[in-house]
Order: sequence, then structure tokens, then C-alpha cells
Amino acid sequence: MSSYVVALDVGGTSMKGGLVSENGQVLVTDRRATPRAEGPDAVVTAIREFIADLAARGGAGLAGVGLAVPGLVTATSAVYAANLGWRDVPAQAFVDMDVPVMLGHDVRTGGLAESVLGAGRGVSDFLFLPIGTGIAGAMILSGRPYGGAAGWGGEIGHIPVFPDGEPCACGQLGCLETYASAASVGRRYSERSGVPGVKAEEVVASDDPVAIEVWDEAVEALSLALATYTLLLDPSVIVLGGGLAEAGPALFDPVRTRLVKRLAFRDAPPLVPASLGVNAGMLGAALLGWTAAGRPSVGEGWTMDVRSAPAVS
Amino acid sequence: MSSYVVALDVGGTSMKGGLVSENGQVLVTDRRATPRAEGPDAVVTAIREFIADLAARGGAGLAGVGLAVPGLVTATSAVYAANLGWRDVPAQAFVDMDVPVMLGHDVRTGGLAESVLGAGRGVSDFLFLPIGTGIAGAMILSGRPYGGAAGWGGEIGHIPVFPDGEPCACGQLGCLETYASAASVGRRYSERSGVPGVKAEEVVASDDPVAIEVWDEAVEALSLALATYTLLLDPSVIVLGGGLAEAGPALFDPVRTRLVKRLAFRDAPPLVPASLGVNAGMLGAALLGWTAAGRPSVGEGWTMDVRSAPAVS
Repeated sequence: MSSYVVALDVGGTSMKGGLVSENGQVLVTDRRATPRAEGPDAVVTAIREFIADLAARGGAGLAGVGLAVPGLVTATSAVYAANLGWRDVPAQAFVDMDVPVMLGHDVRTGGLAESVLGAGRGVSDFLFLPIGTGIAGAMILSGRPYGGAAGWGGEIGHIPVFPDGEPCACGQLGCLETYASAASVGRRYSERSGVPGVKAEEVVASDDPVAIEVWDEAVEALSLALATYTLLLDPSVIVLGGGLAEAGPALFDPVRTRLVKRLAFRDAPPLVPASLGVNAGMLGAALLGWTAAGRPSVGEGWTMDVRSAPAVS
Repeated sequence: MSSYVVALDVGGTSMKGGLVSENGQVLVTDRRATPRAEGPDAVVTAIREFIADLAARGGAGLAGVGLAVPGLVTATSAVYAANLGWRDVPAQAFVDMDVPVMLGHDVRTGGLAESVLGAGRGVSDFLFLPIGTGIAGAMILSGRPYGGAAGWGGEIGHIPVFPDGEPCACGQLGCLETYASAASVGRRYSERSGVPGVKAEEVVASDDPVAIEVWDEAVEALSLALATYTLLLDPSVIVLGGGLAEAGPALFDPVRTRLVKRLAFRDAPPLVPASLGVNAGMLGAALLGWTAAGRPSVGEGWTMDVRSAPAVS
């Protein structure tokens, strides 16, 4: 096998791994559970074993390793991750071999992939907003993911869109996430209708008045947050991803209409769907791996067709 | 006179000018009215004459010219300014002489000055928020003023802090500016009390229940906007300036308390007063002038003591 990197996207539930060649071929993909319940060290060990196993499948030619992880992250350290219990885990702890390693923040690494390979290709300033169980954004500014002074930026899911709104699990009031995440849309419908376990996509597709009301509030919350983002950061495009973006026009059309209405003196940026789907984090981690290997521009020549690439199962 | 630049801060009402040496001495300051009522060309002519007169006072040694102007601006062109009627005015139109010229956006040029010489010295990521007749912010990100994809960023005065709030002059609802600018604080008190022409500083200082209510709403609007900014952009400090920041503890103390309360899962950044006062725009323009002259780092060695510098009258 020619020169390649190991790429890993570490989530709270599962880890998506892959081998990616220098010309952007996704040679192998795989997925394993994240053993979060077994504690912080067990997760580090599981990552180390997953990386070693992937590298064994790749054989000679391993040029670097890239990892997307949650929490507060630098290129060389997983500084803090509440959901995994990590504090100051050095990058080398994740890798047994003597290869260069680079870490990145999970959402911003997905944003990096959309920037270099996906819906943000050729766009230097945009927001990548995956709407899933939770909501966090990756701000691509002047061509690079921006995480703020200390790396805590992008928490658009917790901006107070309704100042006197419903309490959020985070302890604040009226957060975007508590109205508009996939989990919240399902939960809010179930609370009002008395029907337990309804999923967000069912709420979106339903013409039940309660479902329409819950979805309308989600759309309103999203359009307020995107108006705020636009006025502050003047993006040239907003890329919506995550599970809820699969709703397509049922999401994009009303959010677009309300966003335009909320912006009186400036144009709204186009809203476009993310193009890398669930592979964004793993592909971004591959870009980090190639950066660690001293080839930061290698992704510019890649043409990804994620539909035909081996799916992360 | 040794080597110097001409610096000009062009506002809708007046223009503040100065000559600034390469070691940061403010050699001359002056102020003229902006002849806005006479049309776009008259303002350009007035600027050209002001610059020529300042340069005549400086004599030999003119190294460059820097201008802070409102609207959409690039380094070489005043692309669009609604309040002055400008469209695509090239930088050289403002200067008769054969010297390098650089333009900058007014608020971001003030932010540049606070970054290099003032309250943000040594801080790479912060918000500079002058609260005056209106409200706009300068975002300093990774050490530089950031204006967004096209230069329309920083409009924090028009983010919807109260989604169903009062109509703003901009055409939107519930904008920060319509509650918390100095002009709005005075106007809202006058509307409720029936007493015309009350100034913001009088409202802040008053213990009349209507004044307390109006000021409380301004503080609430500000703390919501600053919570949103903090969650999105993770600044290491927030620098408050403009006329309303002269209120001191009457502004800083309640905004700080409410900002902390609005942020459940992260610390609030420190709120600090701007240090360059009304001179920020002119001093930032001087930095632009020195950048035009090929000396972009000259300001790093300056020690400004604006209290002892010749006051812009």
C-alpha cells in the first residue's frame, strides 16, 4: 500500500476510523464503540488499539495520524473533555508507533473537511453547523477553523435566542439547542403530545398541529441564531449538516425565509447542505494526519465523492 | 520635523486629524466638521484639504497617510458608505500628494489602536465595543481586526437580543442598539417620562424609577449580546468604550453580574474600559499610515499616554 495516514473521529458513542492516501483515496473505513462507561483511560487504550489495528491493515507507508476529539483541544493535547473524563492527555498517548500525530476539535475538524473537501471548498469565511443530538458550530474564518482565545468558541447551540425561554440542560435559559437540536425537537413534541419516543424526523414530516408548532419554534430559534451569526461574522455561506439537515427543504426553506426577514439592511448568506455527511470528522482527521506528516496542502488536490467511498458502517 | 504620518478619523459629524511620529509622538491634533450636507464629493474635498493642511504643518518627512472611514472599506477603496453617500472612492482621491495611503473601517481601526496601543495590548482575541450614539463592535481575532467575508461584520448593535422586541431604526426587531446605545437610553427615558431631551448619562445617574427601568433594560440587552459573543467567539477580554462607558461602575458592575449569570458552563471574560477614548480612531489611522509607509510594526514600540497627549479639541 502506498503512503497513507490513519484518521480517527472520536465521539461519545462511537469512533469512526479510516486510512486515507495522499491523493485522497479512502482505503479503509471502520467503526468501533467508544467504551466511555469504562473510564477515561479505557477510551485512550481503545483508541490506541484501534489506530494500531488500522495501521496493521495499511502496512508500510504510515505517514501520520490525525484524531478529532471533543472538548478543549490543541494540536498536541486533549486538554479537557467533560464527556470522556480527559484532562491533559498528550497526543502521543493515543499512538504506540513513532509517527507524527495531530489532534483537532471534533466539530472544527469536520468544518475543516467541509472547508477543504466539501460544501465550503473555495469559501474562506463560513459557518459549518451540524444539527444533531446537540448543536455546535465550526467557524471557518479567513480560510481556517477558529476556536477563540482558548478553544471554547463555536458554542452557537447555547446562545440565548429566547432570553426568557425554556431552561436548557446546560443551566442557561432559551438556548438554541434546547429548541432546535434533533433531540430537543423530539423531546418537545413528546412532552406536548404525551406520545413518548418520537423522533425529530417524524415531527418534521407530520402535519399534526403540535408537531407543526414544535417545528415552527425550532425554525424560529435557528433563524434567530443565524441572523445573529450573520450580523456578527458576515459569512459568505452557511453550511447546515447533521441529522436534522437530512430534512432538506422542510428545514432549509422556512429557515431561509425567516432569516431573510430577520435581516433588514443586509442580504442573507446562502444556506447550503453539508456534503461530507457523517464522514466529515474522519476526513478532517485525515487532513490533520497529513498536516502532521508535513503535507498540509495535500487535501487541495483531493476530489471526494463520499457517496462512492467505502461507507463508515 | 522628523518622519511622520497624517492620520484622519472621518465621522459623520466631525473629522479628527493628527500627525504621529514613528516613535508614537502625537505631534499635532486638529478637528474639523464633516460637510455631509454638501454631498459626497464635498466630503472628499474637505478630507483632501484637511490632510494637505496637516501635512503643511508637518513639513518635510511625510511618510504616509492613514484614514478611518465608515461603511464598507478595503485598504485601497471606500467601497460604500450610506451616511456619506460614497461609492467606490479610491484611497488616492483623498490625497493630493504622492505618498502611500491606507484606509480602514472606522470601528475596526479604533479596535486596531486598542489592540496595539490600548486596553487590548498583548491580547490576541477580544471584542472592542464602543457604545455611543450607535453600537458596532470590532472583533480582534488572532491579533487582527476581522470584518467578515465582505467587510460587513461586527454589527453586534443589530443582533436580535429580544426577538419580539421594539422596532429598531434599521427595520429589524429587538436590536441591541435600540435598547442600549446612548441615544436609545435617552430616547426611551424621554418617551416613558414625557420629559424631552434627557441624556443617557442623566438616566444612568438618576434614581427615578422610570430611569432605573430604562437603564435595567439596556444592561439586560448588553449582557445578552455579550453572552452571545462570548459563547460564539470565546474572547479573552471585552473592551467597552464610547460615551456610555464613561458611566464606569454604573455600567460595568451590573453588566458583569448579568453576564456571569447568563453563562452557566463557562467563565465570563473580564470587562475592561477602553483606554484611548475618542483618540482611538485617529491613532488607529496613524497605525494604518505607518503600515502604508512599509512600517507595519512601528506601533509595537509606542507607549501612549493619551491623557497627556494634545487633546483632540
